[in-house]
Amino acid sequence: MKIISDKTPVVVNITNYLAMNFNANALLAIGASPIMSFYHKEMDDLLRIADSLVINIGCLDDDEIAGMHAAATAALKYGKPWVIDPVGVGASSARTDTAVELITKYHPTIVRCNASEIMVLHGTACQTRGVDSVEPVEKARGCAREFALQHGTVVAVSGAVDYITDGTREAEVHKGSPLMAKVTTMGCCASAICAAFAAVLPPFEAAVAGMDIMGTAGEAAAARSRGTGSLAVNFIDELSLAK
Amino acid sequence: MKIISDKTPVVVNITNYLAMNFNANALLAIGASPIMSFYHKEMDDLLRIADSLVINIGCLDDDEIAGMHAAATAALKYGKPWVIDPVGVGASSARTDTAVELITKYHPTIVRCNASEIMVLHGTACQTRGVDSVEPVEKARGCAREFALQHGTVVAVSGAVDYITDGTREAEVHKGSPLMAKVTTMGCCASAICAAFAAVLPPFEAAVAGMDIMGTAGEAAAARSRGTGSLAVNFIDELSLAK
Amino acid sequence: MKIISDKTPVVVNITNYLAMNFNANALLAIGASPIMSFYHKEMDDLLRIADSLVINIGCLDDDEIAGMHAAATAALKYGKPWVIDPVGVGASSARTDTAVELITKYHPTIVRCNASEIMVLHGTACQTRGVDSVEPVEKARGCAREFALQHGTVVAVSGAVDYITDGTREAEVHKGSPLMAKVTTMGCCASAICAAFAAVLPPFEAAVAGMDIMGTAGEAAAARSRGTGSLAVNFIDELSLAK
Repeated sequence: MKIISDKTPVVVNITNYLAMNFNANALLAIGASPIMSFYHKEMDDLLRIADSLVINIGCLDDDEIAGMHAAATAALKYGKPWVIDPVGVGASSARTDTAVELITKYHPTIVRCNASEIMVLHGTACQTRGVDSVEPVEKARGCAREFALQHGTVVAVSGAVDYITDGTREAEVHKGSPLMAKVTTMGCCASAICAAFAAVLPPFEAAVAGMDIMGTAGEAAAARSRGTGSLAVNFIDELSLAK
Repeated sequence: MKIISDKTPVVVNITNYLAMNFNANALLAIGASPIMSFYHKEMDDLLRIADSLVINIGCLDDDEIAGMHAAATAALKYGKPWVIDPVGVGASSARTDTAVELITKYHPTIVRCNASEIMVLHGTACQTRGVDSVEPVEKARGCAREFALQHGTVVAVSGAVDYITDGTREAEVHKGSPLMAKVTTMGCCASAICAAFAAVLPPFEAAVAGMDIMGTAGEAAAARSRGTGSLAVNFIDELSLAK
Repeated sequence: MKIISDKTPVVVNITNYLAMNFNANALLAIGASPIMSFYHKEMDDLLRIADSLVINIGCLDDDEIAGMHAAATAALKYGKPWVIDPVGVGASSARTDTAVELITKYHPTIVRCNASEIMVLHGTACQTRGVDSVEPVEKARGCAREFALQHGTVVAVSGAVDYITDGTREAEVHKGSPLMAKVTTMGCCASAICAAFAAVLPPFEAAVAGMDIMGTAGEAAAARSRGTGSLAVNFIDELSLAK
């Protein structure tokens, strides 16, 4: 596990409202400095000073979509790495259209998602059910590799065994707990942490490091938790205690 | 107490920003699959796949109100049960107008509220003070019964003793803890849970089951909590452990 | 430490999305009644019944800025004290312009901020890095005093040692824990609590009481916390248990 201790990367987060507090605490816990915003009028200013960006499409509206385009434009302009989390893509055409447009136009450094989501983005028939994945990661590996190659990106798929690929290399993380899927925005948090690592590591290594710290902290937290409420709290504790 | 274990109902939540994380965790804990959104452009897509809907007016803006109308329209179109939580109705004419219009136009399956709120909706003079009820549930029973009959809905009023009625039948839940009123969005959570049960039970039974699990979990959580911070955490733990 | 027990002040909060749940729980814990809203159409109604207001610029958008102006206008109209938290001022011109305009036009009762923020508002060259302060409080004292005098307000600067001044009087709070800076929206919470005290105390005394209870609760919470996740929970517990 690698913690960001030598630098305090500023990570701009355009994320859904549920994830904002939890993800900001996770980023602070690993030594990053989060800014949560989706205001299109300040994205150029923020990306100039930021070290990386995460865009999460979990709660869309027109203003937020404008902020996403402004942020991704500025990330390209200033050469800052950025991560997309295509939450619930496939559940509505608004989500699918937004995710596809952002990926196609602005070439994310990392696509951080679940199995259903990468299958939808890849164009493979699959089952979706709301925003939770109903497909196993194993079924999504081929899609992830092809998508990574086609778009020149890294794909990090979370699940029982996480799978990370840049189309050529691949890695697995055999850590975590099934209870993590019962804590909301845990996946969003993985995306934010991958964005923090993308500020200090190359894309593939950043995604592996991000998924690894998620699994390590989640597994340790689950071991001391009575239920899913305390799991969320203990997870932040574990992140903040990791060396 | 009945937990939703045989099915994983997809519950669309248009709710206030405070409640989003807590309510999503509560829904995951009882075995539902929450989608938090208020984007009017995806409501038809989401309600087609959803099993139920909750609309909570706690944080209004024009975009969110547009989302509420789109969601309720789609709920009627696809025959999905839906719950309204008229948070703070009476505190501003914007809240009152929005709640009355949604109820009148789209006929909610369940109105989940506190005593002051149902009295305001019924048109009975009462005291309100911000978004917290200052009237006892007992005073609101007649209003709740009349309102339920008049609108063909179920009314579930939370308080020291919860009261649920469809205008003819009535039920009480003698559970919970006074500390629950000191944890924000606990009432919003009751509404979300009633919506989850409305996906698998008839309206009156759903409201009773929802209020019952709230009271059971809240009482057990209060017994192990030092203060209101740990109560919120323990409450989610209890929901996730309930059989 | 002074807890608001004799009155239940209604505090209207226009705050960022991350802070809403945590701050509402903090206000409930100390005996206040929070309303979280940024809808410009209800601000006149809400401020009429409210006892105080806090405006926090942490997550801006055009609708929310409209709500801020409507709220501050109504606070002046009804003579209600109000607190501004200029989160991340200096990080973008949108933040700086919004904060300066609100302060200049509507004369806040208390400016609650960190060292970098008051230095930016004062016009003194300083280092900023995202939304976290990188300047020590000691360097900001002169700026705080001058700004307080110039704008007829109280300035409360949080840091290792908090500093509160109305330009003439000054106070220090030597409490708290360095871990508090690793819990997101802890500063926002200080602003909300100062707003609650401003409903029952004169401005300078309110700011001192607010910073004092923050430090006392934070220090006690840190002593029982394993990491920053449990610190957030224990902090609310401490507030709710304080006499």
